[in-house]
Amino acid sequence: MSKSALKVALLGCGTVGSAVVRLLQEQSDEFAARCGARLDLIGIAVRDVNATRPEHIPTELLTTDAESLVDQADLVIELIGGIEPAKTLILRAINAGASVITGNKALLAEHGPALYQAVAENDVDLYYEAAVAGAVPVVYALRESLAGDEVTRISGIVNGTTNVVIDMMETDGKTFDEAVKTAQDLGYAEADPTADIGGFDAAAKIAIMASIAFHSRVSLAEVDTTGITELTPDQLAAAKRDGYRVKLIATAERREEGISIWVAPALVPLGHPLASISGADNAVVTESKAAGRLMFTGQGAGGAPTASAVLSDVVAAAAKRVSGGHAPRELPYAGLPVLPAHTRTGRFQVHLQVWDAVGVLAKVAQIFANAGVSIAQVQQETHADADAILSLTTHTTSYGQLQSALSDLRECDVVAAIQWVIEVEG
Amino acid sequence: MSKSALKVALLGCGTVGSAVVRLLQEQSDEFAARCGARLDLIGIAVRDVNATRPEHIPTELLTTDAESLVDQADLVIELIGGIEPAKTLILRAINAGASVITGNKALLAEHGPALYQAVAENDVDLYYEAAVAGAVPVVYALRESLAGDEVTRISGIVNGTTNVVIDMMETDGKTFDEAVKTAQDLGYAEADPTADIGGFDAAAKIAIMASIAFHSRVSLAEVDTTGITELTPDQLAAAKRDGYRVKLIATAERREEGISIWVAPALVPLGHPLASISGADNAVVTESKAAGRLMFTGQGAGGAPTASAVLSDVVAAAAKRVSGGHAPRELPYAGLPVLPAHTRTGRFQVHLQVWDAVGVLAKVAQIFANAGVSIAQVQQETHADADAILSLTTHTTSYGQLQSALSDLRECDVVAAIQWVIEVEG
Repeated sequence: MSKSALKVALLGCGTVGSAVVRLLQEQSDEFAARCGARLDLIGIAVRDVNATRPEHIPTELLTTDAESLVDQADLVIELIGGIEPAKTLILRAINAGASVITGNKALLAEHGPALYQAVAENDVDLYYEAAVAGAVPVVYALRESLAGDEVTRISGIVNGTTNVVIDMMETDGKTFDEAVKTAQDLGYAEADPTADIGGFDAAAKIAIMASIAFHSRVSLAEVDTTGITELTPDQLAAAKRDGYRVKLIATAERREEGISIWVAPALVPLGHPLASISGADNAVVTESKAAGRLMFTGQGAGGAPTASAVLSDVVAAAAKRVSGGHAPRELPYAGLPVLPAHTRTGRFQVHLQVWDAVGVLAKVAQIFANAGVSIAQVQQETHADADAILSLTTHTTSYGQLQSALSDLRECDVVAAIQWVIEVEG
Repeated sequence: MSKSALKVALLGCGTVGSAVVRLLQEQSDEFAARCGARLDLIGIAVRDVNATRPEHIPTELLTTDAESLVDQADLVIELIGGIEPAKTLILRAINAGASVITGNKALLAEHGPALYQAVAENDVDLYYEAAVAGAVPVVYALRESLAGDEVTRISGIVNGTTNVVIDMMETDGKTFDEAVKTAQDLGYAEADPTADIGGFDAAAKIAIMASIAFHSRVSLAEVDTTGITELTPDQLAAAKRDGYRVKLIATAERREEGISIWVAPALVPLGHPLASISGADNAVVTESKAAGRLMFTGQGAGGAPTASAVLSDVVAAAAKRVSGGHAPRELPYAGLPVLPAHTRTGRFQVHLQVWDAVGVLAKVAQIFANAGVSIAQVQQETHADADAILSLTTHTTSYGQLQSALSDLRECDVVAAIQWVIEVEG
């Protein structure tokens, strides 16, 4: 397998792809030294060869014929995104004996098993560090650094867009819609922000991380996902008063019977390591039996940071083609099932608008007690307009029991409205 | 090379060794699945087979004949520490065709090149994640995750003992000696704490990290090392008033002409990510051209966390022996020299005890100006006893220019004493 040069095909030439080309150009000698072979970029597949591109992109390498390009390559870097044609091209590359590097979280979270199987059958490699948390090397950490340990929990801020939107709502008192609009204007949010603000991008990432960490198959559809679209400036201000910051947190937990996995906004206490993550930064906290708690922080998106992750994979894939061997395989030997959402546990804060009358707290407390939910803290605030706000924080409880209490609260005559329900982290 | 079982030899059975044995026992099926072969612990070399050990250590595996044990093994885990007999045993193992996993920072920082050469000649692997920052996977990060990038700077808190000692001085107002004594009583500091408090442990770790990150050879002796022995409670209290925390920081910088590398206490601004690292935690910040700033945090010492790092290496080494190929080699292709200490640059805070008289500031400022050192900030505090404290913070300057200014200050008649000089981080 030893070669003096490896043929590299790039699929897609957006922000990340352009940064990949630049790094390949600037560091070609270093890469040759690290890989044991030169990396020859033989082509860049694009939809329109005539589109405007940065000057450093060699126009003679542009092609619309991705299939032919893939067939000639030793290493294929897929940065098109989305399911098709990415999936077909990746499978074609694998079946032709190329190793593949991708940053395609949606594809991995939906069709990972098909890709892993093709990789094993063809004895090539599939790398995807760039699919999770940009430049932050969490895929490596979970796949290799914690391979001698038992990971029990992963949690993190893995979507920069939502972090930026929440920051704007917290700092400037913007409404959700205003903040999204500003984030779009500043380039932090896409024209269609659904994947980010709906939590689906974070869900794909936690599904990928859980699959590696727990040696099981977890797909996007199995992640219980709540986005940030219901957050209000009032809620963020109340959280701040209580000593919390609000973050969209993705979590996966290994339990006796299987895996609990969800994405939801959560109250993060100010002293918690995730509370200080702001802007477009990502942070992932792993908890494992021997290593304890580790935290990884850095830029979660952007052309250059993501390209750095792509190229670390390129170097690894290239070095393996030169020296032989293959990357660690995603072995689902543990085969843990994903547990129903209602079985997961956590602490929750419930904000109720209640009629300000004697016995209200007793009535509400009884409803929680009936559902088996134990209350850790209650705060009551009387408003001028004769109703009151009741803020209750539970002890650790199951999500199912909480839902049962909420359902009874909705029927309760002293409760005017459930203002919000939010997880409390840590 | 494919085998259904790999013979594992353990050298040393202290806290980390015992934890390694426990993990090998508890997770033997998982390791078999991850490595593609069972890991058979065939022996544990110790100095005294009759010493008291935890119950889970199988006494029938204990031996004092490390040589014979090494000769039979596929994988050798060296946890003896120190230079000899560790060095001879590791070289023996490598020459006999075994791959080696070690946590021996002193050996790597002093004799790394000899080990790397033996590894390359024998086509085996040498892993040493546990040598730097305990469970925090910085060796992986530098060697693999940033392989597609150009690392420009590494800095971090990589010695838990000094962190704990400084914490105690800050929080409880203990003197240095009292804090060291307490740290020893609590098991955070060794009976002979020289390597920790003198900064040499941190120096070995930053030498190892710089060697990997800058593809060059950096030895322990080349690190300009200042420990924490001169810190006083007064200095820590003053730092706190100024909005800083004091940390022992290890730094390596890639510059045009070579590498600047040093270990020294530094003032860390409260908002800086390293300021919140307390207790025995370690944190490493990498800066690289494409990825930007990444931070890795976790437990830097202790039996189980270090064992987790050892076992990640064991799994990687085992998987490579099964699937073929080898680990990335430490290629010193960049061959950057270590630059003289006086050429490094930084910002510094200088605390002077001066006579409280008109014109003192002008005189002191002139000395800095003559040395080419620009002052960013000055604070003057008049004391009851007719002298004053002048606290000056420089703009970025070379260490050599600072030393020149300090030398002139020592000769200056208005300066009663140079109380302290300390780097300002970030």
